[in-house]
Amino acid sequence: MSSSRSVRKLEVVSPVPADIDIANSVEPFHISEIAKDLNLSPNHYDLYGKYKAKVLLPVLDELESSDNGYYVVVGGITPTPLGEGKSTTTVGLCQALGAYLDRKVVTCLRQPSQGPTFGIKGGAAGGGYSQVIPMDEFNLHLTGDIHAITAANNLLAAAIDTRIFHESTQSDKALFNRLCPPNKEGKRKFSDIMFRRLKKLDITKTQPEDLTPEEVKKFARLDIDPNSITWRRVMDVNDRFLRKITVGQGPEEKGMVRETGFDISVASEIMAVLALTTSLTDMRERLGKMVIGNSKAGEPITADDLGVGGALTVLMKDAINPTLMQTLEGTPVLVHAGPFANIAHGNSSIVADKIALKLVGPQGFVVTEAGFGADIGTEKFMNIKCRYSDLRPQCAVIVATIRALKMHGGGPEVVAGKPLDHAYLNENVPLVEAGCVNLARHIINTKAYGVNVVVAVNKFSTDTEAEMNAVMNAAMAAGAFNAVICTHHAHGGKGAVDLGVAVQRACASGNQQLKYLYPLDISIKEKIEAIAKSYGASGVEYTEQAEKQIEMYTKQGFSGLPICMAKTQYSFSHNAAEKGAPSGFILPIRDVRASIGAGFIYPLVGTMSTMPGLPTRPCFYEIDLDTATGKVIGLS
Amino acid sequence: MSSSRSVRKLEVVSPVPADIDIANSVEPFHISEIAKDLNLSPNHYDLYGKYKAKVLLPVLDELESSDNGYYVVVGGITPTPLGEGKSTTTVGLCQALGAYLDRKVVTCLRQPSQGPTFGIKGGAAGGGYSQVIPMDEFNLHLTGDIHAITAANNLLAAAIDTRIFHESTQSDKALFNRLCPPNKEGKRKFSDIMFRRLKKLDITKTQPEDLTPEEVKKFARLDIDPNSITWRRVMDVNDRFLRKITVGQGPEEKGMVRETGFDISVASEIMAVLALTTSLTDMRERLGKMVIGNSKAGEPITADDLGVGGALTVLMKDAINPTLMQTLEGTPVLVHAGPFANIAHGNSSIVADKIALKLVGPQGFVVTEAGFGADIGTEKFMNIKCRYSDLRPQCAVIVATIRALKMHGGGPEVVAGKPLDHAYLNENVPLVEAGCVNLARHIINTKAYGVNVVVAVNKFSTDTEAEMNAVMNAAMAAGAFNAVICTHHAHGGKGAVDLGVAVQRACASGNQQLKYLYPLDISIKEKIEAIAKSYGASGVEYTEQAEKQIEMYTKQGFSGLPICMAKTQYSFSHNAAEKGAPSGFILPIRDVRASIGAGFIYPLVGTMSTMPGLPTRPCFYEIDLDTATGKVIGLS
Repeated sequence: MSSSRSVRKLEVVSPVPADIDIANSVEPFHISEIAKDLNLSPNHYDLYGKYKAKVLLPVLDELESSDNGYYVVVGGITPTPLGEGKSTTTVGLCQALGAYLDRKVVTCLRQPSQGPTFGIKGGAAGGGYSQVIPMDEFNLHLTGDIHAITAANNLLAAAIDTRIFHESTQSDKALFNRLCPPNKEGKRKFSDIMFRRLKKLDITKTQPEDLTPEEVKKFARLDIDPNSITWRRVMDVNDRFLRKITVGQGPEEKGMVRETGFDISVASEIMAVLALTTSLTDMRERLGKMVIGNSKAGEPITADDLGVGGALTVLMKDAINPTLMQTLEGTPVLVHAGPFANIAHGNSSIVADKIALKLVGPQGFVVTEAGFGADIGTEKFMNIKCRYSDLRPQCAVIVATIRALKMHGGGPEVVAGKPLDHAYLNENVPLVEAGCVNLARHIINTKAYGVNVVVAVNKFSTDTEAEMNAVMNAAMAAGAFNAVICTHHAHGGKGAVDLGVAVQRACASGNQQLKYLYPLDISIKEKIEAIAKSYGASGVEYTEQAEKQIEMYTKQGFSGLPICMAKTQYSFSHNAAEKGAPSGFILPIRDVRASIGAGFIYPLVGTMSTMPGLPTRPCFYEIDLDTATGKVIGLS
Repeated sequence: MSSSRSVRKLEVVSPVPADIDIANSVEPFHISEIAKDLNLSPNHYDLYGKYKAKVLLPVLDELESSDNGYYVVVGGITPTPLGEGKSTTTVGLCQALGAYLDRKVVTCLRQPSQGPTFGIKGGAAGGGYSQVIPMDEFNLHLTGDIHAITAANNLLAAAIDTRIFHESTQSDKALFNRLCPPNKEGKRKFSDIMFRRLKKLDITKTQPEDLTPEEVKKFARLDIDPNSITWRRVMDVNDRFLRKITVGQGPEEKGMVRETGFDISVASEIMAVLALTTSLTDMRERLGKMVIGNSKAGEPITADDLGVGGALTVLMKDAINPTLMQTLEGTPVLVHAGPFANIAHGNSSIVADKIALKLVGPQGFVVTEAGFGADIGTEKFMNIKCRYSDLRPQCAVIVATIRALKMHGGGPEVVAGKPLDHAYLNENVPLVEAGCVNLARHIINTKAYGVNVVVAVNKFSTDTEAEMNAVMNAAMAAGAFNAVICTHHAHGGKGAVDLGVAVQRACASGNQQLKYLYPLDISIKEKIEAIAKSYGASGVEYTEQAEKQIEMYTKQGFSGLPICMAKTQYSFSHNAAEKGAPSGFILPIRDVRASIGAGFIYPLVGTMSTMPGLPTRPCFYEIDLDTATGKVIGLS
């Protein structure tokens, strides 16, 4: 357990410089050094430049017999639109564990979406003296995983519309003959992927010419109901004008127009597949069974029915390997899968966590981030991700800020891009105390999974001791294992040593039980209701559309899946304006969708935008390249 | 000039196995070995896995004082839809020069679009025993350049619609205040990029508060005319339903609907910028001055007016570095920029060619490919690319096949996916002789640039000696420097040794003069007419829209740019059905657009689709991943 070679301690400056300046002030280690510290040999990874490497999946098989390290999930209280420093805390905690407490540690983070990077929010590499570096490589392109998802998602989308088009213009026989063209010897053959559809249709024949006309029709005509299509196109750009569009208006598409829209790429089901898959074989099956809509007879139509599940897997074959990077203090980071826990499940990948747990080994620590507040991020971590991974965390961290607690206690609205009200810049203990109801409910909910909860108060320079004491007291009263003040933004790992010690203790005394919020074998509605209750709701109401979808998915045999709520991150309830710990409300379910490949049912709570927009003055106004040095400037 | 270490000679099998089987039968050298052969040190490149590396642009500065090697451009006769093996010949020629003729050589190829790879055509790594390997990495994602172009193109598109939206809902003052928000000290500031717009408006003030209300309006209100927008979104997928769409139909976009469409990513102006740029600084300027449409007053609106030129450069900063790969026989390949010379300029990049010319040094060879027939590929190579690069080829290769010549001589239509007519499988010398008019015109046109022309007959197993002799005779009669038969598809480099020898001789006796087809300082119409004449046209006719655009671009000061014709690759004329060497026709110009950042005017000849479609049974039906080995299967 000796200090690893690449770790360094930072010399910090006060006041804290801009993120990009701190990031640029440190020369990163060559990523092969970071890999070496983890006992990875060069055949275990592919370099992507000097500071990124993809760790190859076979590592997992090689390490199968090794023991896992401790598993820590970082969630948060209900955030303000400014974010409460969850990524920063995740990184700071790991810098403390690795650079100050002499532990093997891997941070598992999600790849940022380029939408927010150029939009309002900026990058997601942490901040201050707790960052992943190089932050421009982390925030832009990385190793192409999100681009691969975009490409795969949109290939499937093109396949859907084009298939409907070709079916509309051809007879059963012509369609079949084109699908199974004669080879050089004039003999028709099924391609391998077609046997998946044949099997689904209970057709056991292996030669195209043996099919009856009825079987030809069943096989070749998917008969997709255009109104049932839930598969949308995606783009990793904040492009609000693509939220609702009409496609097919060209003369060659012969009037086959259809209303549809684009989501941001990280909301793609393929991102969820990437996050939840456990192997190449598993990914192939998940991608193939993604349901894009129904036939007019109500049968689910899959990517494999369209013949494209294999191609999607090929597009995703490198994306399944997590990307190794480093923190400012030289501790290793695995970056994988995507954010947006409000409209997706928003957790980093199972594959990354599993590899990391083996690499750190017993007494080592893997710290993984769950997006937004614990009501959505941690809930999905426990009930979806841990179900598929069969992993159990020993400790859950909940990040809180005085700023957000004041908001929950009744402080004025916090708006990104607008100056903060003085309530947030001056001591106001009663506001903080009132807001702790939000923290308390997150602690109680998280503790119910059977893990030790450590509260990390991410200290800002304006926070006072009295305010902090109020939070610590409230946290302990609500059942936290411990509550600590962190200053990792200003001090790097050194500022999170107390948090590191608390997490170590929580893990050492953590048990191996995970109590899920709901069992899988109850109805879709019962599962939704169990989650709604954890939000404080007294009931759930469904639109007619939601009822219809639930009935259909149940009939199609999908009711045994876990639930991934699409809900605002700004409140326990569906109403972003309801701060604190609302209760007694009725949770409205507007629609229900299914991500069969990823493996969950996906209720939409109220209206949730799946494509952000750009403000009048987006972040990109500050971003440029210093063409003399090749360095990025203005990225935040 | 000794044989380099990584070169190997192939042992070939007959009949020729499937492309992917040949590709998989060879263990590629680690790309650092290939780099070493080129005298590149590890700080000259970034690894992307084991078989790809990005060669870093500063190499060019380091090698500034070195002499260039010989420069060879490969064009073709007017092709059939099956392609005439131009990439295969380019690769085979280089395998011959490197592995058999002991020359330093670099092949410069374009990155394939994923659209055709999953659509009808399949990949573009060459074929048979003349391929770039690993062919799956070449055909899919590569090092992310096309994904970067997609991301940058679509960020700009989102910026356009969103800006129009925000301008429509805000007063001049509100707009200005949002564009220049107060900092922490309450002081408003211009961001650096805003000084580009201020300069364009002749405003020399540096403080926002000093602007008069009129200047505020001029600065903040771009007043883009929605009908003038030529910037479309892109996607690297064959998605015909995106050819014409309506965006902005969501309720939050308040009725601001607009008709637009998607092109395939390689048709983006940003791809053209990548291909034609010469440095980071040059790329920054080109991206910033891309024109997306006009203000209602007729002023061109640029990416920098929208504040996004810097962000686009940041997105493209790695894409400017070409990707090093290898052929089956271990010779180096630089892959950069994109295909589609029909709707774009379709040449590999200036940067790649320049680096390659320095790396091979005097007596070495750089072979670069120009897309489709010489009428469009080579023409654009000479008149656009060489103009911006200031490089001159010593030799131009024209690839011909007996199949295509028979088609030009009056043979039946050749359709992808349908069996070939027997005319193409049996000897028919008169058809070949008749078709040689097409070859002859390409030779005459190419020779007019002042280069030696070598004709490479890409031999198929069904071609007969009499047919080949007919081609050789016709080629020499038309003024070719030499004409040779090649069997590199069946035999690798060994099959192109005669071609290699001919190219060596042609280069040794080649001069350094390049006679452009047209000077830049004549009118747009005169330039279009010079190119039309080289097609065999007796005149040009313009639609009213084309006339209007030419007038506008001339008024805006853009008439000094070269011309990039968007024309079918299947005929010298605008009519794909007119084979051979048509003449006396009137070339119709439907519309004229401008790629000001890339640096050319862009007439549309007839109707050209900028977004391909998928057939009933796309290539993807055969493509899958062998999840046990991780190998791609079915890629062609």
